[in-house]
Amino acid sequence: VNLILLTADELDDDRVARLTGARAGHVCRVLDAAIGQEIRVGILDGPIGRGQVISRTAGEVLVRCTFVPSPPPVPAVDLLLALPRPKVMRRLWAQLAALGVGHVVLTNAARVERNYFDAHVLSPGCYEPLLVEGLQQARDTRLPRVSIHRQFRPLVEDRLDELCGPGLRLIAEPGVPAGIAETVADRDLPRVLLAIGPEGGWNDFERQLLAARGFYAVSMGTRSLRSDTACVALLALVHDALRSREGRRI
Amino acid sequence: VNLILLTADELDDDRVARLTGARAGHVCRVLDAAIGQEIRVGILDGPIGRGQVISRTAGEVLVRCTFVPSPPPVPAVDLLLALPRPKVMRRLWAQLAALGVGHVVLTNAARVERNYFDAHVLSPGCYEPLLVEGLQQARDTRLPRVSIHRQFRPLVEDRLDELCGPGLRLIAEPGVPAGIAETVADRDLPRVLLAIGPEGGWNDFERQLLAARGFYAVSMGTRSLRSDTACVALLALVHDALRSREGRRI
Repeated sequence: VNLILLTADELDDDRVARLTGARAGHVCRVLDAAIGQEIRVGILDGPIGRGQVISRTAGEVLVRCTFVPSPPPVPAVDLLLALPRPKVMRRLWAQLAALGVGHVVLTNAARVERNYFDAHVLSPGCYEPLLVEGLQQARDTRLPRVSIHRQFRPLVEDRLDELCGPGLRLIAEPGVPAGIAETVADRDLPRVLLAIGPEGGWNDFERQLLAARGFYAVSMGTRSLRSDTACVALLALVHDALRSREGRRI
Repeated sequence: VNLILLTADELDDDRVARLTGARAGHVCRVLDAAIGQEIRVGILDGPIGRGQVISRTAGEVLVRCTFVPSPPPVPAVDLLLALPRPKVMRRLWAQLAALGVGHVVLTNAARVERNYFDAHVLSPGCYEPLLVEGLQQARDTRLPRVSIHRQFRPLVEDRLDELCGPGLRLIAEPGVPAGIAETVADRDLPRVLLAIGPEGGWNDFERQLLAARGFYAVSMGTRSLRSDTACVALLALVHDALRSREGRRI
């Protein structure tokens, strides 16, 4: 944990927040922050700042917070992901938030098993704490939006524009010649929507529908990767490509 | 599993291998391969090929194999990794093999807890099956070499040249200006050794020693990531940078 996240309603009129439970334990036992010491804090979907410890008792820490004026930007990458099996999805949540994803759009596909949609790991009570854990690791406050779609075709045909807005659309396909860095560099669009298929791959219908909706095929080589490894690797490449493009503008 | 790995001594003089246990189960239940059907096979640290199913009974599958002449290349990236906590290391093994690492060099550091070195996850009996799982996912045969070092300074001063040979040395540091793609593109060295610190970071002594031994600091942005996320993200960036450089040569 490199940042303690608060919700806006946890601050009183003097900008003092009362931490209990795991967050208080982290401040006392891991950081061992003394009275007067400052720790990094952030407001969920709001700004980052510093919290001065003003009281510290068993199980409760009071911090007075000051924040920088503007919140961090919403990550410029959205993810359209064929729902992986629950064990893999569980491992992914914190990593997605840590790497930075604006909107996580989970979808069905021919090679996704229907019962994955009934998994506990798709309930907000399960995934929200994991997303917060990832944000606290990466010192971000922007909670990824999450939407879950049991029908691929209506999602791609009717909903994607509204969910993710305009931007560069990429579909990861092992072995195609186009790389991510070059493709992002050549197209001056502020946001990227990255589609990652199930471990067995998209089927022909799905591939054609995504191509018809503007998804451009890129690859990171010929190796076939597990969904969680592929997501982390591809998100890192897209973010790096966006950073490189920004760098070249300066 | 996208490839069934065999050891060389599992093949008889007619290049027939007898699969039992999990591999037989995969051929029968997941692939449901009939007599005469071909499946992808590979020899550990040897070539890739096809295996024709010639017999299939409860718990045993016989496949007759033919191989392409030359084995896949050893991955061009080595990893110097400050040992993460056992739970994170366990998740990493298969992912490292899937992404492709020539040599995994695990080291102590000031911010690594000593007792991590006693973990079961560092015994070959634990990690080798996980590495094989990653290779079978990625259709590779090159088992990463693994070495484990309880002393950072003698490793870096005396052993790294012999363990990893000459190459570009990179150290990942959040927030430094140099990117991985540009750094790899500018230096025409065939191999890369990538150093990734503990979650609390290298200390000043470690950083200076690595710099003195030729490690060049690069970053993938300012976000601080868990060791497993950082390894997957950074290995993906280094491999992609090497691929891009090769592409530009053609």
